[in-house]
Amino acid sequence: MKATGIVVEYNPFHNGHLHHAAKAKELSGADVVVAVMSGQFLQRGEPAFADKWTRTEMALSAGVDVVIELPYAFATAQASEFARGAIHLLDAAGCASFCFGSEQGEIEPFLNSLELLNTKREQYDTIIHDRVQTGISYPKALNDAYLSLKNSSSRYADLTKPNNILGYHYIEAAHAVNRAMAPLTIQRIGAGYHDPLEPGVAIASATGIRNAFFEGEELGELAPYLPTSSIRLLERVHAEQQGFVDWQRFYPMLRFTILREGPKALARFAEVTEGIENLIHESAKRSETFDVFIARVKSKRFTRTRIQRMLTHIFTGYTQQEAQAVKQPEYIRLLGMTHNGRRYLNERKKAIPLPVISRAADLTGSMGQLDIRASTLYLQAIGADSLKKEYTTPPIYLGDSSDK
Amino acid sequence: MKATGIVVEYNPFHNGHLHHAAKAKELSGADVVVAVMSGQFLQRGEPAFADKWTRTEMALSAGVDVVIELPYAFATAQASEFARGAIHLLDAAGCASFCFGSEQGEIEPFLNSLELLNTKREQYDTIIHDRVQTGISYPKALNDAYLSLKNSSSRYADLTKPNNILGYHYIEAAHAVNRAMAPLTIQRIGAGYHDPLEPGVAIASATGIRNAFFEGEELGELAPYLPTSSIRLLERVHAEQQGFVDWQRFYPMLRFTILREGPKALARFAEVTEGIENLIHESAKRSETFDVFIARVKSKRFTRTRIQRMLTHIFTGYTQQEAQAVKQPEYIRLLGMTHNGRRYLNERKKAIPLPVISRAADLTGSMGQLDIRASTLYLQAIGADSLKKEYTTPPIYLGDSSDK
Repeated sequence: MKATGIVVEYNPFHNGHLHHAAKAKELSGADVVVAVMSGQFLQRGEPAFADKWTRTEMALSAGVDVVIELPYAFATAQASEFARGAIHLLDAAGCASFCFGSEQGEIEPFLNSLELLNTKREQYDTIIHDRVQTGISYPKALNDAYLSLKNSSSRYADLTKPNNILGYHYIEAAHAVNRAMAPLTIQRIGAGYHDPLEPGVAIASATGIRNAFFEGEELGELAPYLPTSSIRLLERVHAEQQGFVDWQRFYPMLRFTILREGPKALARFAEVTEGIENLIHESAKRSETFDVFIARVKSKRFTRTRIQRMLTHIFTGYTQQEAQAVKQPEYIRLLGMTHNGRRYLNERKKAIPLPVISRAADLTGSMGQLDIRASTLYLQAIGADSLKKEYTTPPIYLGDSSDK
Repeated sequence: MKATGIVVEYNPFHNGHLHHAAKAKELSGADVVVAVMSGQFLQRGEPAFADKWTRTEMALSAGVDVVIELPYAFATAQASEFARGAIHLLDAAGCASFCFGSEQGEIEPFLNSLELLNTKREQYDTIIHDRVQTGISYPKALNDAYLSLKNSSSRYADLTKPNNILGYHYIEAAHAVNRAMAPLTIQRIGAGYHDPLEPGVAIASATGIRNAFFEGEELGELAPYLPTSSIRLLERVHAEQQGFVDWQRFYPMLRFTILREGPKALARFAEVTEGIENLIHESAKRSETFDVFIARVKSKRFTRTRIQRMLTHIFTGYTQQEAQAVKQPEYIRLLGMTHNGRRYLNERKKAIPLPVISRAADLTGSMGQLDIRASTLYLQAIGADSLKKEYTTPPIYLGDSSDK
């Protein structure tokens, strides 16, 4: 059996994701779609609006065959590390190709960009370093470096676009893994990432959908944008979790943690650098809500996403020391599979170079312990009753594929 | 004007405390009663059931003239350190005497004990050290040491009794401060410390009264045991805090904090020693309620009180490093005063060797910052709205003494 890989967060799973999984399979000619998915915390530095098991079930109900958890150490890291961890896992899982959505919609410009940047790596790194020193954000510096190097006679990926940047990092990571995993891309269609919901557009952004949740829209009204299975699972998790999860919900715990650590100690957590610890501490002291808090801390230099990643690391107690020890993903944690996915894994099993983990209790190394810790804290912040879930939930198995 | 000092927690202020304050004044012939009171966390390693301002107001309404906050670094330390900090502050506040309640009820046996133990200090310390090594608790070791040294021809304080032990430490501390502050004691009357409430006994234990609260008794039914002013203030704080405070209420935050730190890092907090960090971590993971949790952790060697002090330090992030840096109290933080108390302080002001602090913003050193942190975390754990209180609450002034 042949597999293609995708990298996802499914926050939540919507029609755009349905399209992505189907197209990945079609373009690659694969029999199964393997998704590497962030766990309880996401790359933009946020707790997932619903736990990883619910999001896994959504994916399995709508075209994905295997869901693997991207370890916390990669899932909440900056884009290049996120991509590196994800691509490494797709490679380990035996995917012959991987497929990402991009604004670009064609693979060639990405390959040109990679070649350009690889041949001019030194200049590129120097420019990024210098630009970051002037106080601009990392994505902006990356784009500036790239613009100043590119050759007008070739077609390059537009690295001002968020999905193109991520795609570039996937390709860069796949190149480094040095294996014949073929890169594929599909055009993102429908709404942009940050766009609000538009009636009549069958593909809405995850952000738009989440905002609709938090503004109290009925789940039923989101039916045009989500597979029926997603709606059903969202209704279930909404009842179980007593609402959806966002930073505002976790703010009492976050604020407590920031105030408890004090400004000095905050500087030891991953990504917390350059004296921002005082601003974080002072703002937490003065802000009653998360929105007020983040508005006080974010700036042109420290984007909301970057600040949120710092907050995620403070929340989970993830230190710079821990981050520096991260090398490669050390295991494949299986969150779920369809009947088809199980057949693939059984066939493939012996060729997989990493341990395939079905139970949290088997995660004995520090990378796995961190995943357990992050998940447990997420569950504790929702409500103490569900704390054992991390240990007792087996990989979700969806034998019935009638939903697809 | 002449002052006598008392050391209190008022958790809550009840008829026994009323008796104590009145008797201290009577025995000492003082014009004012100065109380050194624990802040938001207590010596038995618990959050106070009501905030320090409410407890101050109870005290001022019922016979105490000046309330000074015992800094966290002493208030939550073991008995000898607790006593040392409190006595130091009473001395700094200019008290000519201090008065404590004891099972003994007479001062001479305490002075005999002190002399005995001072002359045999080395043997005493050796015995305590050896006994603790065998796995028995510190108070038990202290009592064993003392029993094996005492001379049958003199009358000694019975150091198996909790209030006698504390009294002994007061006298020991006053002796070390080396000043002519006269020790006085009164017989504790009514219920014992741990006794449940008994109808018809006008003095009930604070523990008994608190248990009645948490078991849902109407405040009005406690009228026989508390001054009217205390009942009124309890009703107010119950509404403000949405109930009273105990570890169960703080358990979600405590549990989150323990799980976030992980077993290894727990060992850096004050009093967390001898490998108990693993048991604390494992028990937090498995226990849905504080009662179940503490039952799992406490033992003959690690008493409930000792464990609770560890938990308090974990909760507030108070490290061994911070604890080791503690020397003497560095300021007199004024929580409240009556008209009479204000007159005394004004008269005395210039002779007070420590800064008298009325606003949290003036607590700039690490000891004061710790007080702010502990109080702020207490407020945050109750509910975010009241977080600024630590900064905005001035010392309570009770001009009207009609209540006494």
